[in-house]
Amino acid sequence: MSEFGQTKGTNDYFAGEADARREMEQTFRENFRNFGAQEVIPPAIESADLLNSKSSEELREEGLFYTFTPKSFNVLNEAAEEGKSVEELNPQDFIDTGLRFDGTVGVSRVMAENKDVSKPAKWFYNIPVWRYEDTGEDRLREFWQSGIEYLGTEQLAHDAEAVALANQQLEDVGLEDAYFELNNRKFISGVLDEYSIPQSQEQGALTILDKLDKKERSELLDEAENDKGIDRGKFEDVLLFLNSDYGFSDLDILRQQFEGNQAAQEGIDELEKLRSYLESYDAADSVEFSPTLARGLDYYTGIVFEGFHEDADSSIAGGGRYDDLISDIGGEATPGVGFALGNDRIIDVLEENGEWDEDMPGARVYMIPVTDNQEDLEYAIEASTDIRQNGMETDIDFSGRSIGQAFSYVDNQDIPYAAVVGPDEREAETVTIRDMDSGEEYEIPSSQAGQKLGEVRDRVN
Amino acid sequence: MSEFGQTKGTNDYFAGEADARREMEQTFRENFRNFGAQEVIPPAIESADLLNSKSSEELREEGLFYTFTPKSFNVLNEAAEEGKSVEELNPQDFIDTGLRFDGTVGVSRVMAENKDVSKPAKWFYNIPVWRYEDTGEDRLREFWQSGIEYLGTEQLAHDAEAVALANQQLEDVGLEDAYFELNNRKFISGVLDEYSIPQSQEQGALTILDKLDKKERSELLDEAENDKGIDRGKFEDVLLFLNSDYGFSDLDILRQQFEGNQAAQEGIDELEKLRSYLESYDAADSVEFSPTLARGLDYYTGIVFEGFHEDADSSIAGGGRYDDLISDIGGEATPGVGFALGNDRIIDVLEENGEWDEDMPGARVYMIPVTDNQEDLEYAIEASTDIRQNGMETDIDFSGRSIGQAFSYVDNQDIPYAAVVGPDEREAETVTIRDMDSGEEYEIPSSQAGQKLGEVRDRVN
Repeated sequence: MSEFGQTKGTNDYFAGEADARREMEQTFRENFRNFGAQEVIPPAIESADLLNSKSSEELREEGLFYTFTPKSFNVLNEAAEEGKSVEELNPQDFIDTGLRFDGTVGVSRVMAENKDVSKPAKWFYNIPVWRYEDTGEDRLREFWQSGIEYLGTEQLAHDAEAVALANQQLEDVGLEDAYFELNNRKFISGVLDEYSIPQSQEQGALTILDKLDKKERSELLDEAENDKGIDRGKFEDVLLFLNSDYGFSDLDILRQQFEGNQAAQEGIDELEKLRSYLESYDAADSVEFSPTLARGLDYYTGIVFEGFHEDADSSIAGGGRYDDLISDIGGEATPGVGFALGNDRIIDVLEENGEWDEDMPGARVYMIPVTDNQEDLEYAIEASTDIRQNGMETDIDFSGRSIGQAFSYVDNQDIPYAAVVGPDEREAETVTIRDMDSGEEYEIPSSQAGQKLGEVRDRVN
Repeated sequence: MSEFGQTKGTNDYFAGEADARREMEQTFRENFRNFGAQEVIPPAIESADLLNSKSSEELREEGLFYTFTPKSFNVLNEAAEEGKSVEELNPQDFIDTGLRFDGTVGVSRVMAENKDVSKPAKWFYNIPVWRYEDTGEDRLREFWQSGIEYLGTEQLAHDAEAVALANQQLEDVGLEDAYFELNNRKFISGVLDEYSIPQSQEQGALTILDKLDKKERSELLDEAENDKGIDRGKFEDVLLFLNSDYGFSDLDILRQQFEGNQAAQEGIDELEKLRSYLESYDAADSVEFSPTLARGLDYYTGIVFEGFHEDADSSIAGGGRYDDLISDIGGEATPGVGFALGNDRIIDVLEENGEWDEDMPGARVYMIPVTDNQEDLEYAIEASTDIRQNGMETDIDFSGRSIGQAFSYVDNQDIPYAAVVGPDEREAETVTIRDMDSGEEYEIPSSQAGQKLGEVRDRVN
């Protein structure tokens, strides 16, 4: 063990695991591109003010994973010069920048600063994000998201495309049976209004609704009453109503029930239209209407959705519409919708289902010089170049170990081909290939080794 | 502009630029894999102790870009409870974790903690790293490195492979005329010994040698004398000697000159052998011996090298051997060698040479519904699915703008194909394709659109 351990809540990915993760990322990338999207790489570091202004109440209360620059040192020095006491120091003054907690805020900031970008823009990303959370099996402090933002569009068809694309991504990495819960902030807003919960308490109510899966109802009612000042009786009615078993087939009933409630009507209309678009995207079977779904982050304004899988404890994807986010942070009015996939949780589910393959050998050909004479090693190097150029990943054994040990290594590593070279091969300008699977051996001119092995590349892929 | 600006020293990459960067990363990835390496994804966050122990004197002096966790708040609270004054607060106590400043330290920490990994291991990475530097055109605080570490190998052939692979990477992204300067810490060590500079001053001397390109000689001599306590006269002799115009062809002369100096002899022997291996790798023409090259980081023990290009102000790649790093941080003795490419600087050079192409359209087909009736939009969605499945990136115009405006957009975005659908096409189950290049238009059954457009995919790639 290193005397400097791994940082809490972070993971090391290596030896096949990282390759498999990058391959998944590449699948996501190709799918995003297939829908005409372009990649965006926002910086990991954003101003603490931006992060604070757009996180959830929960994230703010429990603290983000902040990055303080050496500003902290200046703060201490200045305070000392001014004769301040420790009590007079304000922790917020130490904060300058922070690590992004999701992709949406950074990408929106980029859009806010680049007015000339033609819209609608479809921007996708594959990035790590950070949260200073209590760690646990399912709670990492550094975790990966692949997501997309549709910026500068009010069209509900884009909300539908987002859901369909999220569903497609999950299918394409092997989660055929994922499903999405859908709701609309407008609908919830209408319901809260119907139960006479004032608009000023709406954000608080949403925060509590977001915890429905995690906490007991009595606990949530306490929190609503004590922390958010929401009338307990009214909020209990809201919970009772939302928890009823409504689905897409009940939208007409709900429309009648909320007659005259404009927000609720709009919410219901959008949900209905969305479902129709989802049929065209061939994704309608993977979605259901969930009246309790709220999503924690403050910035959502319309459709919200989360992806689930029966083998995951919590959602594996989530997104929604945020029409005010970019103007809120000082950009031009730019309505948007987007989602992020929780790559780590998706991998957990794939692992549990035996569908996650980390067994990716580094090399496909292992070149074994039978001596460690410099000239034999050099011949091995020359013979490898041609094989590499024919698309076969080739490693060379420079260690001088016995040929038996080298063959054991090739076996253990599941490398399909060994290529043996020694003084005889060097003089004859040949390579002895061994097919590790069949045991077949053949000596061929080294000038043909690349082409010959390249031809079998697809077979061993 | 957003009211929350971009953080100093960071960049936003979007709309073609990010795609181009990911494509470059993918080229690097494929080359690394071609040499039998596997990817590693170390966490961005490491313990401040680890980062401090293995950075360069310069980085430590000028401050890394530290991440402080909310620990800072606890430190303040505890200090207040204990009645401490501001002067009694130790800035180091606030530091818990930091952002990695290179790939090597994190990857080495991973290796130190995972003893069972079969060695030698070839691990490559494509990651951002962070330094709290004075910013400038060429000085980012968040920048990207693609690199590789060969861990658990003493073989000089691996040092050579590292140099050759770095050279290959630069060639494959379009820098045919990059070149590498090579040196050996053992040789420098021998030279310092020859000029009677005590071993205790070696690290200080190396730090100053590393600044040879950036500062005046008199300034460096002052620094050597005043900051490092090195004898001015002796160090001047060292500088004079190293700055002489020695190349690979002078290795025999140097071997005679340093007869009996074991470190220098070893250094020279290794350089000579390395050059011979580089010939086998067909990379010898891209390297030269540079006696002044030192590399700033403390952890190098043998061969060091840097890649340059005449259009770059500073090195675009760098690496070397670090045989003690992993045991230094508490792991088993694991000799290693590796390098990192400076992706941002490489891109700068490519841009300057007009060889950096960010002109990557998001979509290859733009589906234009002539009305914004929901049923026409839905038909557009259905017709797009098949085209996407045939590998043509397809975007749909949901905006309801006029067909003229839509065609202008397609033109501006260099999208090669438009696919127009309206009530007529919907009823006939067809799509009208326009080849934007030739202006040719044809109406085909939508069931054939995917296949037909897929066939021309390679042509428009």
